[in-house]
Amino acid sequence: MSRNPALRDRAIYPYWARDTVRFSDTDAAGHVNNVSICAWLETGRLTFIRHIGLMDRRKPLRGISAGLNVSFLRESHWPGEVEIGCGILSIGRSSLVVAGGVFRGEDCIATAEMPVVQLKGNDPWPYDEDAKRELEPWKIREQK
Amino acid sequence: MSRNPALRDRAIYPYWARDTVRFSDTDAAGHVNNVSICAWLETGRLTFIRHIGLMDRRKPLRGISAGLNVSFLRESHWPGEVEIGCGILSIGRSSLVVAGGVFRGEDCIATAEMPVVQLKGNDPWPYDEDAKRELEPWKIREQK
Amino acid sequence: MSRNPALRDRAIYPYWARDTVRFSDTDAAGHVNNVSICAWLETGRLTFIRHIGLMDRRKPLRGISAGLNVSFLRESHWPGEVEIGCGILSIGRSSLVVAGGVFRGEDCIATAEMPVVQLKGNDPWPYDEDAKRELEPWKIREQK
Amino acid sequence: MSRNPALRDRAIYPYWARDTVRFSDTDAAGHVNNVSICAWLETGRLTFIRHIGLMDRRKPLRGISAGLNVSFLRESHWPGEVEIGCGILSIGRSSLVVAGGVFRGEDCIATAEMPVVQLKGNDPWPYDEDAKRELEPWKIREQK
Repeated sequence: MSRNPALRDRAIYPYWARDTVRFSDTDAAGHVNNVSICAWLETGRLTFIRHIGLMDRRKPLRGISAGLNVSFLRESHWPGEVEIGCGILSIGRSSLVVAGGVFRGEDCIATAEMPVVQLKGNDPWPYDEDAKRELEPWKIREQK
Repeated sequence: MSRNPALRDRAIYPYWARDTVRFSDTDAAGHVNNVSICAWLETGRLTFIRHIGLMDRRKPLRGISAGLNVSFLRESHWPGEVEIGCGILSIGRSSLVVAGGVFRGEDCIATAEMPVVQLKGNDPWPYDEDAKRELEPWKIREQK
Repeated sequence: MSRNPALRDRAIYPYWARDTVRFSDTDAAGHVNNVSICAWLETGRLTFIRHIGLMDRRKPLRGISAGLNVSFLRESHWPGEVEIGCGILSIGRSSLVVAGGVFRGEDCIATAEMPVVQLKGNDPWPYDEDAKRELEPWKIREQK
Repeated sequence: MSRNPALRDRAIYPYWARDTVRFSDTDAAGHVNNVSICAWLETGRLTFIRHIGLMDRRKPLRGISAGLNVSFLRESHWPGEVEIGCGILSIGRSSLVVAGGVFRGEDCIATAEMPVVQLKGNDPWPYDEDAKRELEPWKIREQK
């Protein structure tokens, strides 16, 4: 689990998306189902990845999601909206980790670390220096 | 299918909801999956039903969804948002039909007729005169 | 709504698929969400369409789903499986209607009529005589 | 990510569930969406938890899912079925970790570690010695 408490702080995220709480997101336990929280995090991660230019540029490179490490922190209920903060937690040679936090107001519903690997064809492909420079502003902000 | 072309006109709807186009709403055909359009229509219908007071009042009465008659009119794609217009198409003795239209800007993606039955316990229960009077303003508007 | 009671009879269906009741299929009302029933019906319709050869042959022709007219007849609960019966209800010039019934044992959860239109490019394209002959055995069986 | 390669071995799992690959599980990238893989893992985890008695016994105790750490290892496609192997990876004072592996034949699509916390009311509640003894047979099997 992503037990990193820093990810529960709204102030660290440079990018925000939102999603709608659907009634079909709830389950028979009476609250939002965990799978739906994963869908919200995907809304955040993919609109973020697209926003910072990792989807439509630099073809034939592409990014794939290699994993999802999420902590479910609070119950959530229908109806309403959620905000999903995103930023880059770390950049490696050919992969990076997107951090995400799902919020309703000040309440943090879930946090996640989501590794994304850059591929050329089926092989990992290193980020070049230009790419790294362009990604820099989208890192999550350190708080004291 | 709800082949009623009047439902493609934004102007008829007295209530509006919105939903988020999720990447998980798309399918391998490259566009939004029909099941996701049904989820958006549910967002519209249930927030509408709730907004007009059919969820939280008049207990022990409750409403159940008896069917869904939807026409898929256009392809839709990720990312973005949709708007869902809703209104009451007709009121019967113990049931009503909610009309819904899913829009992106002026484009109508889908229309639907969605019957809702009022129950007391497990039996249909007629709307009284007060209820009918309160529902009246939420009827869809006739256009010429 | 597809209020055709004939569709509640298992004996009419020439093709069967099955689907899994997921916990994420349920909603806060405590039973399976209507949207999930639409997903099960899609599992039935598309595996049927594929099984009878309407997906992989006759290119560049393709079928699109034009609507969904479903009646929700009974509550359903997690866990378990459902069976989805499918057959052709009627064949028109360039479209056909797939009938579907969702069952748990003898209980019929939902029935649906699902029109599918054959397209060439973006235009409806008539079924030729060969296609009609091949579709004939997949019609739903009349019961007395 | 659950980068534990031991979880890719079918032989370690004492419990198996299955799920159906739905067309609505795919996304516009042409393969099964990651969120759907999380739904399959939930099918495995919850039917497992229920099977070993952690759902219906020992009330007023209950288990909640505290996180999901999943590695996406391979693409998967419609149609078909998946098998989900489950077992207990470790037992703590008031929580345990369920390991899960999603398979199509010998191919491992995804693995996950899924912590579950036992609560009484809203507080973590330790497993007693009886509970621990009953959970023992459901541990994943060490392979050499």
